[in-house]
Amino acid sequence: MMSKGEETKERILYQAAALFNTQGYAGASISDIMRVTGLKKGGIYNHFQSKDELALQAFDYAIELIKQRYRDALKNKRHASERLQAIISVFGANVENPAVEGGCPLLNTAVESDDTHPMLRHRVQTAMNSLRDMIRRVIQKGMARGEIRPEINADEVATVMISLLEGAVMMSKLYDDSIHLERAIKYLNNYIQVELEMSS
Amino acid sequence: MMSKGEETKERILYQAAALFNTQGYAGASISDIMRVTGLKKGGIYNHFQSKDELALQAFDYAIELIKQRYRDALKNKRHASERLQAIISVFGANVENPAVEGGCPLLNTAVESDDTHPMLRHRVQTAMNSLRDMIRRVIQKGMARGEIRPEINADEVATVMISLLEGAVMMSKLYDDSIHLERAIKYLNNYIQVELEMSS
Repeated sequence: MMSKGEETKERILYQAAALFNTQGYAGASISDIMRVTGLKKGGIYNHFQSKDELALQAFDYAIELIKQRYRDALKNKRHASERLQAIISVFGANVENPAVEGGCPLLNTAVESDDTHPMLRHRVQTAMNSLRDMIRRVIQKGMARGEIRPEINADEVATVMISLLEGAVMMSKLYDDSIHLERAIKYLNNYIQVELEMSS
Repeated sequence: MMSKGEETKERILYQAAALFNTQGYAGASISDIMRVTGLKKGGIYNHFQSKDELALQAFDYAIELIKQRYRDALKNKRHASERLQAIISVFGANVENPAVEGGCPLLNTAVESDDTHPMLRHRVQTAMNSLRDMIRRVIQKGMARGEIRPEINADEVATVMISLLEGAVMMSKLYDDSIHLERAIKYLNNYIQVELEMSS
């Protein structure tokens, strides 16, 4: 059971994560956070020392929601190709049914923080590292099981997959048209079959 | 010859474009604009009615600088594959030698404006449309000249190229490591050769 204080803290994190993910960290003021949470300033600072601390924890909270989606999507998927397609399908939800309102927090926070906010940028690097690791491990295990071609460079594949999907999320959000993300997914699913899978 | 007023206006646009492209539109205040331009508030509002008007014009100014790079890169390139590679090479400069400090204004402004700033978002859509048009035209002309396979969907190729490159700019900026952009460029140059070019 969560205490009332823990419940309030989690609710602030969830609402702040959505706010930051739509308006940006610089674009969301403490008044905006008060508005979406319905709390007074003291009620927020009771749980977080500063807007920056809330920003860092809200980002981590958003990433946890996405990791849960990966765990759900990967459940019962054994073959490396199926597992890669499951990862891609989680990205596919970023426009129509995002884990956090506003699209992909990795993309949004990377673009905002890279020149301005070293601590936040460091969190994004950590989250991006774990996404790259997940893709690499799926590929390496697939190689060991004879499902993926042994000459593949797993980290290069991770770069191509993540870049194409994040760029397509940007385009689909820009036009409010899922076609770009759909094209990226179709392209990658074909790429997995043609370029990565061991021919049977 | 530009008048002194026109020169001042252009200098403000150039400096504001770099400021917005690094700090974001919400993250850059009028005081920041005063600091980078060395002008007082009145000196800025003398040329632009509001921060929003400056933002829109500074974005257009940044896009003009990039269009000039495309014109330079495409000069004397005739074959469709060469022309596509020239477009890709302009993207390649986004990390080490961007036209505007802070990386790609299309990516940065798309991500910031999609949920927050309809007028700015509309400018980004227009700029993205002209990038997509440029790629489509190169491909269609290449088909007419027998350089590109006739079954290619030019708009799908534009989505894949732009998404992969913009996503890779995001990753390379996040890590301050050009490897992701280099991988995307290598991948696309190979893709052009293997998937798009008519085999000779």
